[in-house]
Amino acid sequence: MMPTAFIPSLHPAALPAGLDWHEHGQATLSGALLDYFERLDAGIAAFADTLAATPLRPPACLPPGVADRCGYLSSFPHHASLARPYANSSDDDPGCVLTPAACYHVYPRLAGRDLGDASVHTLRATCFRNESHFLPLERQWAFTMREIVCVGTQTEVEAFLHRLHGVVAGWCRRLGLRGRFEQATDPFFDPASSPGWLAQRLHPLKIELQVHDVAIASFNQHQSHFGEAFDIRRDEHVAWTGCVAFGLERWLLALLRCHGNDPARWPAPEVLS
Amino acid sequence: MMPTAFIPSLHPAALPAGLDWHEHGQATLSGALLDYFERLDAGIAAFADTLAATPLRPPACLPPGVADRCGYLSSFPHHASLARPYANSSDDDPGCVLTPAACYHVYPRLAGRDLGDASVHTLRATCFRNESHFLPLERQWAFTMREIVCVGTQTEVEAFLHRLHGVVAGWCRRLGLRGRFEQATDPFFDPASSPGWLAQRLHPLKIELQVHDVAIASFNQHQSHFGEAFDIRRDEHVAWTGCVAFGLERWLLALLRCHGNDPARWPAPEVLS
Repeated sequence: MMPTAFIPSLHPAALPAGLDWHEHGQATLSGALLDYFERLDAGIAAFADTLAATPLRPPACLPPGVADRCGYLSSFPHHASLARPYANSSDDDPGCVLTPAACYHVYPRLAGRDLGDASVHTLRATCFRNESHFLPLERQWAFTMREIVCVGTQTEVEAFLHRLHGVVAGWCRRLGLRGRFEQATDPFFDPASSPGWLAQRLHPLKIELQVHDVAIASFNQHQSHFGEAFDIRRDEHVAWTGCVAFGLERWLLALLRCHGNDPARWPAPEVLS
Repeated sequence: MMPTAFIPSLHPAALPAGLDWHEHGQATLSGALLDYFERLDAGIAAFADTLAATPLRPPACLPPGVADRCGYLSSFPHHASLARPYANSSDDDPGCVLTPAACYHVYPRLAGRDLGDASVHTLRATCFRNESHFLPLERQWAFTMREIVCVGTQTEVEAFLHRLHGVVAGWCRRLGLRGRFEQATDPFFDPASSPGWLAQRLHPLKIELQVHDVAIASFNQHQSHFGEAFDIRRDEHVAWTGCVAFGLERWLLALLRCHGNDPARWPAPEVLS
């Protein structure tokens, strides 16, 4: 796949129809853009169904204890956002961590279990990631992540990620997008505080699918990180986990940049299913 | 419609399949319960489509300024929740108001306009309402609200609410639920601080559809409140607004209580469309 020319970000004052941009890094979608967004998501969910994935509707925040068990706030404080009551706020109630990535809602469901088979889930979540600046569809404080998550043996998780790599590359091509796969470090490891960061540089566990230098999907191999944190076993060994995450607004951005502002002229997203 | 016998709330230790309950008043849905939830919501959205409603996907929080313009935090501080970055929190950044009701996202889109026709929108939002205690599906900190919202003349809004009243009563019956309509005061008016509360007692603007004493839908006539707040006109007069709000988790609760724990034995939600 070819490197692409520099394409500027969407300017907040010149947005396509169906996209309204708000301060604090949030967007409203409507019209043909929203319709495409939902069909794209439904196509991914339909593919997940062919893997016998269990669909989930997760809560807005990580349940108390889950963030701790993952070490999220300590390894990634600068990207976290909290929700808390307005009137009752006190130091005793620090608030709940707003979902940073959909897959965090899967592992606690399997806590303490020894799985007889690999387990696949799919879910969509509004995710929050704090950044120094925001751009429409590209870098939002609140954005939409669809994930497919596999928990199993090392072999099962590696086969899942390998298969998804090929499938998603095919979707990208059929949507007319020029993507390339790049190794990346997992954003859950903060170089300043975590030895995990160096480990990832040496043995990359995260691969991003980039279009115009923006990651629209990521393929994440967590090894036994979550299996250990949540005491999940598979066939009597600590389970491995892996997930494929789709940043749905970024797929819209890639399609806008490639095919123009009218979704009626974009390739149908149903090819995904 | 008949008064019903007292039915206890779902006990967090004895929940139906497909419902996981978390501290802080949040739930995860899966399995047949989630499937029904999505079909129910799709049925309401399909009905809204027959009204030529514009679908929206709103942001997670009220954009800054919108909460102020509605007077939300001053009239209802005890129910509000805020989202803010974890690391950057300071008094200069009080945070954003997490969506308290879906319809707040509609009015700012029409701000400053004089509408040539009545305008109908539909949208679904994860809404936050702080309470002193929480119960699964019944009283959640974070829950799901589907709304249909009309902006128009007084006559148009009253006709919209009247029509929806009849349609929703029919859905309720066809789902086998024994509902009753009750006048209520608008939760946006706090009796301790707002003269609006007394006005509502005298001229009820909010009607709730209750099943087993739990409101599963509300019909709200805002008169010119939002039209004035957002300078929306209809035919050169200040616009009136009205909305019908469905608490989707509470519809599940009503169906669970009435028909038992297996959604396969519930009436099909497609009757809504």
